[in-house]
Amino acid sequence: MSRYEDDSLALHTDLYQINMAETYWHDGIHTKKAVFELYFRKLPFGNGYGVFAGLEKIIDYLENFRFSQSDIDYLRDIGYEEDFLAYLKDMTFTGTLKSMQEGELVFANEPILRIEAPLAEAQIVETALLNIVNYQTLIATKASRIKQVLGDETAMEFGSRRAHEMDAAVWGTRAAYIGGFDATSNVRAGKLFGIPVSGTHAHALVQTYKDEYTAFHKYAERHRDCVFLVDTYDTLKSGMPAAIQVAKELGEQINFIGIRLDSGDMAYLSKEARKMLDEAGFPEAHIVASNDLDEYTIMNLKAQNAKIDVWGIGTKVITAYDQAALGAVYKLVSIEDGDGEMTDTIKLSANPEKVTTPGLKRVYRIINKLNGKAEGDYIAMEHEDPQHAERLKMFHPVHTFVSKFVTDFEARELHELIFLNGVRVYTLPDIELIRERTSDNLSLLWNEYKRALNPEEYPVDLSQACWDNKMKNIESAKVQPQGQA
Amino acid sequence: MSRYEDDSLALHTDLYQINMAETYWHDGIHTKKAVFELYFRKLPFGNGYGVFAGLEKIIDYLENFRFSQSDIDYLRDIGYEEDFLAYLKDMTFTGTLKSMQEGELVFANEPILRIEAPLAEAQIVETALLNIVNYQTLIATKASRIKQVLGDETAMEFGSRRAHEMDAAVWGTRAAYIGGFDATSNVRAGKLFGIPVSGTHAHALVQTYKDEYTAFHKYAERHRDCVFLVDTYDTLKSGMPAAIQVAKELGEQINFIGIRLDSGDMAYLSKEARKMLDEAGFPEAHIVASNDLDEYTIMNLKAQNAKIDVWGIGTKVITAYDQAALGAVYKLVSIEDGDGEMTDTIKLSANPEKVTTPGLKRVYRIINKLNGKAEGDYIAMEHEDPQHAERLKMFHPVHTFVSKFVTDFEARELHELIFLNGVRVYTLPDIELIRERTSDNLSLLWNEYKRALNPEEYPVDLSQACWDNKMKNIESAKVQPQGQA
Repeated sequence: MSRYEDDSLALHTDLYQINMAETYWHDGIHTKKAVFELYFRKLPFGNGYGVFAGLEKIIDYLENFRFSQSDIDYLRDIGYEEDFLAYLKDMTFTGTLKSMQEGELVFANEPILRIEAPLAEAQIVETALLNIVNYQTLIATKASRIKQVLGDETAMEFGSRRAHEMDAAVWGTRAAYIGGFDATSNVRAGKLFGIPVSGTHAHALVQTYKDEYTAFHKYAERHRDCVFLVDTYDTLKSGMPAAIQVAKELGEQINFIGIRLDSGDMAYLSKEARKMLDEAGFPEAHIVASNDLDEYTIMNLKAQNAKIDVWGIGTKVITAYDQAALGAVYKLVSIEDGDGEMTDTIKLSANPEKVTTPGLKRVYRIINKLNGKAEGDYIAMEHEDPQHAERLKMFHPVHTFVSKFVTDFEARELHELIFLNGVRVYTLPDIELIRERTSDNLSLLWNEYKRALNPEEYPVDLSQACWDNKMKNIESAKVQPQGQA
Repeated sequence: MSRYEDDSLALHTDLYQINMAETYWHDGIHTKKAVFELYFRKLPFGNGYGVFAGLEKIIDYLENFRFSQSDIDYLRDIGYEEDFLAYLKDMTFTGTLKSMQEGELVFANEPILRIEAPLAEAQIVETALLNIVNYQTLIATKASRIKQVLGDETAMEFGSRRAHEMDAAVWGTRAAYIGGFDATSNVRAGKLFGIPVSGTHAHALVQTYKDEYTAFHKYAERHRDCVFLVDTYDTLKSGMPAAIQVAKELGEQINFIGIRLDSGDMAYLSKEARKMLDEAGFPEAHIVASNDLDEYTIMNLKAQNAKIDVWGIGTKVITAYDQAALGAVYKLVSIEDGDGEMTDTIKLSANPEKVTTPGLKRVYRIINKLNGKAEGDYIAMEHEDPQHAERLKMFHPVHTFVSKFVTDFEARELHELIFLNGVRVYTLPDIELIRERTSDNLSLLWNEYKRALNPEEYPVDLSQACWDNKMKNIESAKVQPQGQA
C-alpha cells in the first residue's frame, strides 16, 4: 500500500472500539484489567471439529501494535481530541495472552484464546484478532475436512486467484497447510512460510505454442519435473497422446510425474487417461485433477472409481465456499472493579446459545489413559485443578442430565502462555511441527467425530463450578436494575 | 509481515506462471507481444449486472512490480538457475493496460481489462490481477445488489471481523463503498481510502458498566453523536428505556441519532422500538439493525414493515457469503508470431461456454439516444468502428437468431488506457467520483436488469466480424495436428 509509508494495523479496528476506549479513558477506567475470551458458537461445514490457525499473525500484530503518525493525524482529522490522541500515541499491547497453539483442535463454545489486558487495549485489538482467527481457523478446518476424505492422497492448494484479496491467498494457504494440505501454488506463501510450492504450466503455454506436442516439449527442455495439462483442445484425442509422446521421446531426460485434468468429466477422463498411461508404460505416472473440487465432489469421484491420485483444490478451500465465515466472537468475561477486585460479567440474550459464560476459565482435553482417546473437553474455573482430580463428572452444558464420570484420565490444558504483561514468552514452532501437531491431535479423536457427514458431537462440558457460576450470574443479571429511574 | 523487510508482490503468483515464463525465456520468445483478456463467464448471485472494482490496487501492483532480493534468493533456493534469475531481477511491467474504470458496470463474457505485454510479464501478473479483480468486483457487485433493495436507506459495512484476513477487510469495504454503501466501521479503510467511518459502542461497554443507563450516560459524556446498543440484556424492557432516559436527561447536550438492534426478531423489535421512541418524543431517532443481514433478510423485513432505516451489514457483504468467489479468468487471445505478426489464439473446451473469443477486441455500451438507456454491450474487433456506424446489428452470441438493429445510438467505449508501454497514463479519480459513477452507470439500465430476483438478461453481443473470427478459429483449432507422430 503506497498511500502511507507508515500504514499500521493498530487502526485496523472498528470505529466503535476507539469510541469505547475513549469512553473508558475519559472515565479513568481504561487501565482496569479486563478479561476477554475469543470463541465460536458453532463448528463450520457441519464438521465435527475445528483446527485453530492464526497465532503467528496475532503475535506479529500484537508485538508491533502501535498507532503511526498518520493514524493519529487521521483520527485528529475525524474529530478526536489531543488529550485522547496523546494517550493512543503511546499505546502498546501490555497485556497477557493465553492461547491454543496452531494446529490444536477446537470446538464450539470453548475459548480459543484469552486476553487479560488494560480495558482500552483489550477493546481495540478485538477486531483484528477476530479478523485473523475467523479466517485462518475457517480455512484450516476446511482443509482438514477435505484431507479426511483424501486419506494419504496429495492435496495441493491452487486458489490464489479466487482468494479474497492477497492476505487471504497467503495466510489461507498457510492455514490449509496446517490443516493437512501438502503444497501450495502461491510462490510468495512458499517464501514467507516455507510451504512446499507446486505447479508446472497452464493452458496459455499450449495456446502460445499452438499445439500440445510442441508446448510439452518446450516445457520439458527446461524443466525436469513435468506434469502436462492435457485439456486445452481435446483431452483424450490430443492432450493425452501428446503427453505420452513427449514422455516416451524424452525418456530419462525428464521426470514425467504425470498429467493434469482441468475440465470435463473427471471420473471418465481419469479412467481413460489411466488406461492410456498404463498401456504406454507409465504405470507410475500420476493423474492430477483440478476443477472446483471439494470434499463432496471428491467423495463422489472416488465412489465412481476415478483414477485421480493428486488433487488440486482452489476456490472451495481458499474461500471456504460453502460457508465463507466463521462466527467467532470476543466477549468480556471479567473486569476489575472499583476496589481492584475482578468481577464476572455476562451478556444475556433471547437466544440461549448467545448467553456468555462468565469468569476466568481454563480449557482441558480429557484423555482416557486406557485407549489414548479424548473423552471430551472440560472448561473449568481458573482456580480448579482437574489435572489432580481422581474422578471427573462431565455433563452436557445444556442437557445437564447427559453426564458421565471419567477416571484414569489425563487433563491436558490447551492454552499456552503467549504474552506475559506485553512481553512475548512463546516461540512459534516451525510450520512442519504445527502441521504434525494437527495430525497428532486428530489421532486423539474417535473416527466418529471426524466423519465429513453427520459426525458425532464431541463433548465440550463445563465443570460444576463453572456451570454454577454461570447460573448465579444469569440470575443476578436478570434482577439488575434496568434504566434506573 | 515482519519475516522479510523486502516482501514484494511480484512473487504473489502461481508457481506455474514462473515455470511458463522460464520456458518462454529459455526458448527466446519471452518478449513476444501477447494479449490477454480478463473476464468472468457468469454473473454472481444471479444478479443482472456486476460492478467493477480493483483498478486502484492493480495500478499499485503493476507500478511497483519488481522481484526483491529475497524473492530472487528464494527462487534460487527452490532450484531456479542464475541465468533466468538475472532476467527476473530486472523485470518490470512494460506492457500496455486497457481497463474499465472502477464503478463501471460489467457483464459476463466481456473483457474487463486487456493487457498487451511481453509474454513472460503478462503471464506472471495473471494471478495477482485475478486475485484482485475477483474479490473486489464480487464485493462491489454484492454491495450494489443490497443497495438496490435498500433504495435511499443507509447501508454501513460492519464486517471486518469476518472478512477473509486484513486485505479483504479494507479493500472489500472500499469495494462496498464503490457499490453504493455509505460508510464503513473499519478505521484503517477510512484513513486509506477516505471512506466515511461509523460506529459507537458494543455490548462490552454495557458489560463494563454493568447496566445500560450508566454505560449510555458514560458514553454520552464524551461523545456528542450517540447510537445506543439496546440488546445486551433485554431490548424492550431494559435497553430501550435506558436509551430514552439518557436521551431525555441529556437533551441538547447530545445528538441522539438513535438506537441499534443486534439480535432478536428485528421486525417485531423495530416496530416496538419505533413506538417507544415516537412516544418519548424522538420521532427523528433512527433505528439501526445489524445481525447477519443481506438482501434477502432485508426484503423480508421490509415486507413485514420493520421500522429500520439504517442497516449495518457485515458478514454477508464482506465475504459475499452466498457465493464467495467470482470466477474471472485471464485468457490469451493473440500473440506475436515468428514474423512479428499478431495471430489469434483460442482455447477449446467440451463446455461451449469455456471456448475463448480470439483476437484484440474493444467493448462498447450501446446507448439509445432517444431514451438514454443501454441497448446492450457490443464486443467488436479492434479495427471496427461502431462509433461511426449508422446502424448496428446486435445478435445473441449463442442463439444467433435473436437479433435486433439499433440506430440513433451512442457507442461508448468502456476501456480506458491505463498503462502505455509500462508508463501509467491514467489518474485514478477520487473515491467519491467512482461511487457516483456507479450510480450514474446504473441509471443507464432499465429496472428489469436491476431486480434482485430473476432479472432480465442484459445483452452482451459480438459484432459480426468478431463472431466470424471466432468461428474461423474454432474450425482451424479443430483440424490442428494433435500429438504429431
